[in-house]
Amino acid sequence: MKGIVHLVGAGPGAPDLLTVRAARLLGEADIVFHDALASHEVLSLAARAEKIAVGKRCGAHSTAQRFINRRLVEAARRYRTVVRLKGGDPMLFARAQEEIDALVAAGVTVEVVPGVTAALAAAAELRISLTRRGVSRSVVFATPRAGEGESRSRWAQAVRAGDTAVLYMAAGDAPEVLRALREAGVRGDVPVAIAENLSLPQETIAAGTLDELPMLAERRAGGPAVVLIGEVFRAMAAAQAAAGRRKARAASHSA
Amino acid sequence: MKGIVHLVGAGPGAPDLLTVRAARLLGEADIVFHDALASHEVLSLAARAEKIAVGKRCGAHSTAQRFINRRLVEAARRYRTVVRLKGGDPMLFARAQEEIDALVAAGVTVEVVPGVTAALAAAAELRISLTRRGVSRSVVFATPRAGEGESRSRWAQAVRAGDTAVLYMAAGDAPEVLRALREAGVRGDVPVAIAENLSLPQETIAAGTLDELPMLAERRAGGPAVVLIGEVFRAMAAAQAAAGRRKARAASHSA
Repeated sequence: MKGIVHLVGAGPGAPDLLTVRAARLLGEADIVFHDALASHEVLSLAARAEKIAVGKRCGAHSTAQRFINRRLVEAARRYRTVVRLKGGDPMLFARAQEEIDALVAAGVTVEVVPGVTAALAAAAELRISLTRRGVSRSVVFATPRAGEGESRSRWAQAVRAGDTAVLYMAAGDAPEVLRALREAGVRGDVPVAIAENLSLPQETIAAGTLDELPMLAERRAGGPAVVLIGEVFRAMAAAQAAAGRRKARAASHSA
Repeated sequence: MKGIVHLVGAGPGAPDLLTVRAARLLGEADIVFHDALASHEVLSLAARAEKIAVGKRCGAHSTAQRFINRRLVEAARRYRTVVRLKGGDPMLFARAQEEIDALVAAGVTVEVVPGVTAALAAAAELRISLTRRGVSRSVVFATPRAGEGESRSRWAQAVRAGDTAVLYMAAGDAPEVLRALREAGVRGDVPVAIAENLSLPQETIAAGTLDELPMLAERRAGGPAVVLIGEVFRAMAAAQAAAGRRKARAASHSA
């Protein structure tokens, strides 16, 4: 076997939120397999590499995982430096284990480069710590999205048990997410926020309460998003609501 | 106010696991406030900056948070680029909110640069995804460590409700952690691992079951560590146990 496959976290989107190691590996790569969401700016760091889109984007046509695995093994036979680029961090909601296991079974050396996950990019943008003395000592990262044939899981109970929660791949199913969380016993007035296109120029953040989640989700532009839930977001949600009321009053006064 | 205070995630330890943005800000910084655990290599990137250690290390003498806040405000009055460097990510278990609130109240502009948190660095080193199809759709990050006067929290219930868990600032209190988790209903045979000095040359990883956590923790060298818990670690724990048995057999044969 000639090459090494590097599973590399691309971070939330902004090229300078790649790690130094990830940026270096992109520059050295012979071939890069990337998701549909990888930005042009990030991919342009892989100046000398062949670039192959293998993205599985929600709702869009998806390349089967087994086919991706086979292509990675083939690339490791032909090239020295193979990069498999994944948005955020490779080890959170990125189906990395299936690729790692297939590569190891084929005798390929795998290295993983961690990245900045969307939840932490959101906290940084909001300037709100996910943990806070006296308010939050646990943070739950979860997804309501199940694989084909996968049983319903305990994700909603986990969210209820944690002090703060961040949901991945959830904004597109807001009514179902609301129902599952209310059934699990989460209060409807708990503060939430949806952060979309994090760290990019088109970033948007909308805040409210859990019961308002479907309404907040409808305003989305359709970029990658995380849903943030918990008391640590209360001050922000209140500030956005007040700004909305001021805007509504100003509009009714000028009408 | 002259300067901006940047709360910057230093990542797990290896200098090339800083983000590109963090490395650039260190190079531009006039003054850097850092924790006791910041490595010489990372700090050397801040070539032109005055470096101030304000670390609060477990068990060691700690500088009061209020004093740190005041020093950050003073620095923003005197310098253009102030960096407050925090291990891992600033928004997870780093008491960033107290610093952000104090700075904002004093009229100082704050920017936060997210980083690679220890849990994700551990998953990368182990090549084990924290989420896995059919096994784990939720990951809980929690700490058993309470601030002074803080009530006992729901952290152990959150760990029990999640599929995978990563504990911060827990390895030093392994017997108490084991007791709290068993009381919360976590099984004693659930796989665990302790990852210490992540991404550094002196990195060590020890795996076993939850009931073995105190024994695994006793072998630690005392560096920063995370405790990983969940079924996704089962294959690794089994492999380490088999290696241990082989070593024991070899020793008894040669005796």
